[in-house]
Amino acid sequence: MHPVNVLRYRTDEPLVEAPDELATEEPLEIRVRGRAVTVTMRTPGEDADLAAGFLLTEGLIRSAADVVRIATCPRSEEGNRIDVTLAPDVVVDFEKLTRHVFASSSCGLCGKATIESVRGTFAAVTSDARVEAGRLMRMVEAMRAAQGTFARTGGLHAAALFDADGNLLVLREDIGRHNAVDKVLGFALMRRWLPLDRHVLLVSGRSSFEIMQKALAGGVAVVAAVSAPSSLAVEFARGNGQTLIGFLREGRMNVYASPQRVVFPPAAADPAKHLVHGAVD
Amino acid sequence: MHPVNVLRYRTDEPLVEAPDELATEEPLEIRVRGRAVTVTMRTPGEDADLAAGFLLTEGLIRSAADVVRIATCPRSEEGNRIDVTLAPDVVVDFEKLTRHVFASSSCGLCGKATIESVRGTFAAVTSDARVEAGRLMRMVEAMRAAQGTFARTGGLHAAALFDADGNLLVLREDIGRHNAVDKVLGFALMRRWLPLDRHVLLVSGRSSFEIMQKALAGGVAVVAAVSAPSSLAVEFARGNGQTLIGFLREGRMNVYASPQRVVFPPAAADPAKHLVHGAVD
Repeated sequence: MHPVNVLRYRTDEPLVEAPDELATEEPLEIRVRGRAVTVTMRTPGEDADLAAGFLLTEGLIRSAADVVRIATCPRSEEGNRIDVTLAPDVVVDFEKLTRHVFASSSCGLCGKATIESVRGTFAAVTSDARVEAGRLMRMVEAMRAAQGTFARTGGLHAAALFDADGNLLVLREDIGRHNAVDKVLGFALMRRWLPLDRHVLLVSGRSSFEIMQKALAGGVAVVAAVSAPSSLAVEFARGNGQTLIGFLREGRMNVYASPQRVVFPPAAADPAKHLVHGAVD
Repeated sequence: MHPVNVLRYRTDEPLVEAPDELATEEPLEIRVRGRAVTVTMRTPGEDADLAAGFLLTEGLIRSAADVVRIATCPRSEEGNRIDVTLAPDVVVDFEKLTRHVFASSSCGLCGKATIESVRGTFAAVTSDARVEAGRLMRMVEAMRAAQGTFARTGGLHAAALFDADGNLLVLREDIGRHNAVDKVLGFALMRRWLPLDRHVLLVSGRSSFEIMQKALAGGVAVVAAVSAPSSLAVEFARGNGQTLIGFLREGRMNVYASPQRVVFPPAAADPAKHLVHGAVD
């Protein structure tokens, strides 16, 4: 939280200068073997988890054992630089980190090709975990209750990890939703919880290709979002065995992929039982 | 828009499989002089504007004269690759395009250093343009009216450019808010409207460092957002002479930087006239 003075205007009221609180946005440089691999704009806090999660979801590391040490750069007064020391046997493909330039050798770049480029890096989800619909809905309430007032009002994105019984394991907030997800996944990685194949990752906003790719890096079985998915998020989820839920709020949800992991109440499920077993895909 | 079948569940109702519409997300590869400079996930449409806007806001080009031709790659069936031919005298610094790795030689990366790294690339805004508060409020209504139902419900981000008289010049929607802004700025660049120093750029969501940097690349005098700014957005705006407005909705607004460009009704402005002349900064 960042205090600032602001000029507040409401129709038919006098102007006032008033203190306000802003979501903090600061750059974080992540270094691997002395080399800067990214600068991300993030909300400070849980930076070690963010770095670990970033390296996981970029496909550079796979387990906590790959990481020897994560340390704030000793000369960095602001703490906006972090150094990751990897185990000597970890082969780092720095080329992979130019993340916005996919290695596409031929013309015809499309969603399918993008999904293909991820294949091989992360395994598809095959988990037989199941979670009750009512439990999913209560996860949204649990996330909101755990968030600060400020975040609830939309100032920050949130990502939360739950087990299949609905227990909140970790909640992270950030000005960037990809950072919030990286922080959650980095936290889980360093506690050796991966793959998260009996877990639910809940995000406060929409789900995109990037969110689904990150979730796959963590082996997450179920991704649920309060808002809508993109077309590529759905395509990606269907191609990788991920359960994808959208519009999870106010007693409703849409299931876009792998609905067999959601247990609906018998009354709801009976009339359309065939759908529960994968017809949507 | 992308059609998809979805499993819809509402508490105490039977499950139904129903058609749904998703925001389309597809990768676009932008090539300059035969070299891929980025792949961005975007909503297809107005790709030439997106490419032009991207190159502008990354500091590679400065005017329409720098661009000879923007063409979809002839071998690309999906139209997801675009080739930009620049004038021969344009010096391309490909290093600049590794946009997530700032050139920071010393420890102590912080918001201020990030703002400094942008300085010199884009000139600060010094425009004496002024816009009425009531006109700003009507811009939000105008943007909403011009958006599709789908976008209004939050499926897409929107960016719109207005002149100081409140006329809507261009509106773009995209799954990525930075893309929506790039599309608007690319459109304006190619029409030789830059600098947009008598214009208002309105964005549907929040404002961040990235949005303010892009706006500065276009020389935009006033940036207004329906939602909150980040701390770095405010710091950046104050450092570069940009007027920054947030929470522009429902008869209210907060002015975070350079309020002298906003004309408030006399009744509102009189009691706090000193604020209008920069005391907030």
